[in-house]
Amino acid sequence: MELNKLIRENLRKYSAFETSEQLTDADWVKLHTNENPFPPIPEVLNDIKKAINESVRLYPDPTAFELRKEILNVLLRDKETLTNRNSVFIGNGSDEILDVIFKVFIDPGDEVIVFYPSYSLYKIIATLYNAKINEIQLNEDFSIPDEVYSVKGKLMFINSPNDPNGKSFGNATILKICGNFPGIVIVDETYADFSTQTCLPLLKKVKNLIVYRSFSKGFSLASLRIGYALAAAEIIKEMNRVKLPYNTNYLAQVAALSSIKHSKKIFENNKKILEERERLSEELNKYDGISVLPSDSNFIFIKFEDKSKTLKFVWDLKELKILVRHFSKPGLYNYIRVTVSTEKDNDVFINAFRTIANKYL
Amino acid sequence: MELNKLIRENLRKYSAFETSEQLTDADWVKLHTNENPFPPIPEVLNDIKKAINESVRLYPDPTAFELRKEILNVLLRDKETLTNRNSVFIGNGSDEILDVIFKVFIDPGDEVIVFYPSYSLYKIIATLYNAKINEIQLNEDFSIPDEVYSVKGKLMFINSPNDPNGKSFGNATILKICGNFPGIVIVDETYADFSTQTCLPLLKKVKNLIVYRSFSKGFSLASLRIGYALAAAEIIKEMNRVKLPYNTNYLAQVAALSSIKHSKKIFENNKKILEERERLSEELNKYDGISVLPSDSNFIFIKFEDKSKTLKFVWDLKELKILVRHFSKPGLYNYIRVTVSTEKDNDVFINAFRTIANKYL
Repeated sequence: MELNKLIRENLRKYSAFETSEQLTDADWVKLHTNENPFPPIPEVLNDIKKAINESVRLYPDPTAFELRKEILNVLLRDKETLTNRNSVFIGNGSDEILDVIFKVFIDPGDEVIVFYPSYSLYKIIATLYNAKINEIQLNEDFSIPDEVYSVKGKLMFINSPNDPNGKSFGNATILKICGNFPGIVIVDETYADFSTQTCLPLLKKVKNLIVYRSFSKGFSLASLRIGYALAAAEIIKEMNRVKLPYNTNYLAQVAALSSIKHSKKIFENNKKILEERERLSEELNKYDGISVLPSDSNFIFIKFEDKSKTLKFVWDLKELKILVRHFSKPGLYNYIRVTVSTEKDNDVFINAFRTIANKYL
Repeated sequence: MELNKLIRENLRKYSAFETSEQLTDADWVKLHTNENPFPPIPEVLNDIKKAINESVRLYPDPTAFELRKEILNVLLRDKETLTNRNSVFIGNGSDEILDVIFKVFIDPGDEVIVFYPSYSLYKIIATLYNAKINEIQLNEDFSIPDEVYSVKGKLMFINSPNDPNGKSFGNATILKICGNFPGIVIVDETYADFSTQTCLPLLKKVKNLIVYRSFSKGFSLASLRIGYALAAAEIIKEMNRVKLPYNTNYLAQVAALSSIKHSKKIFENNKKILEERERLSEELNKYDGISVLPSDSNFIFIKFEDKSKTLKFVWDLKELKILVRHFSKPGLYNYIRVTVSTEKDNDVFINAFRTIANKYL
């Protein structure tokens, strides 16, 4: 067997997504993966425990009926968005939602628009599906350039708030893009639970829009893999046809349902993250030579005026068992991305940063 | 927006997988989905409960390192198969393994061999991936016809034991197929935990073979979505490259690990299913006009001599709140598939069958 001849040719040029360093060692301060620093609240943990019974042997509900209902009736009730249960899709994490969208729309050679810099998985999956990729460079201030209004293609991916800079795009911009783009615009709102902004209300007037969100970040359920997408029922119908039959697991469905029931308390907890985000930004902005970009996510993006100092900070932080995210990519060499964590961990980071700043800044 | 122009053309001819009837009503006897009638043993349920803690907020191990290790070192230790940790792939249920195999090997127009009758998802996913499908009809006795030894293609899917008839294919046959087929042969051993047969040892000498198995059936973990594939490390490497980054959830990994630790006790429990399979088959074989096919799965396939009576049984059973599986497909109209359940549920079925047989046989 010549395996090389059997494997798809486009996998030769394909670079897989690199998952971040997995550290089981408890004494590391992990500020590199944007996980929520708070575990799910005890009420949610208890609800998951209670669900571990006879039902475990059975296949999960393939369409997550209850969850779709509660997402609309409770979680998004005040968001002025769609209300039809058939407008919701539930995925095995928001990554699977992405994959399912490609399965519905993309044949080899179809054009996909992504932005740079942004979450890298859009481009990676587009490569996997052999799409023609049009990567549009964001402006210096990470805003969307005007060329977007004349671009053609089948799918366009917008991350809002955008990873790595942390800022949401305005609804006026997204609305104008949808009006001009002949294909489907997908807005990934994975981090929107930390923002006051959302484009969910646009779904009421715009038909070529899919918005998806996650329970991984705002609801601390990253380990269980569950996310949801909203779009016109005719789009969701196609997504349900192509998804794997039993894509989301039962305990993730239970955990998401419980999180919705207790969402008020969870959002209250998350306020601490927003307060810490402001504190961190203020502390760091005191230094000459660096500036913190405005963020409405659970992470901040720090810009170094002197590019050569950036990696020195990353390495020295790692020496002190603090992990942050550095992207060795064009235009991003002089930035580091730092997850907003607990007060305690943020203090560890602030103190370490001070020590290192005394050396280099 | 004209959605029809944006959706992939091949979705027009695509028929989605139909999940079986979802009944939450407890008084139905469900013998139509081949779920294990026994819940996971208390030791496993407790291990899952214990894992519901702070870790829930974190991303799961993307490569399920521990689980891969234990599958080889403990679960498959006496199976005379591969021993290299990089020869194991972990998927979000065995359905995702199937999808990942297509992602590695299939470009539109590539040829895929499936058998009829067999598990329908192979053909459905092949259609989704725009593969050219060569469906080979099994012999009258559900054995593989000789034409298979001269067939060409990229992938061939063999379900062993085969759904719906329940019988495994011999290793001599599978070995001969691998020797003659220029592509990759995939053996789906989802039901092999109920059989004394497995083709896992073939992996030691055959390079164009992928064998995959599930924790859904033999280990009663259908709700959690976890399965595994074994193949040459160079194949598994490609599968890991194309899978979604965090495909399997943490609690499924925990549950699978615990199930392996307690596999002796679990297999002891499953012996009751095998005993019940024999009892059911004997009881039903007493009737004139029907015969039960030999099975080494957790279900039996009942053949009716008089085709016109088959659906009468299905409907009358449903009247009595007993669900069995009937396939309205060529060659299968005169069969019903029945999951082997607990002694109590099987008695309900046997008694109902007797009443109906008195009417029609």
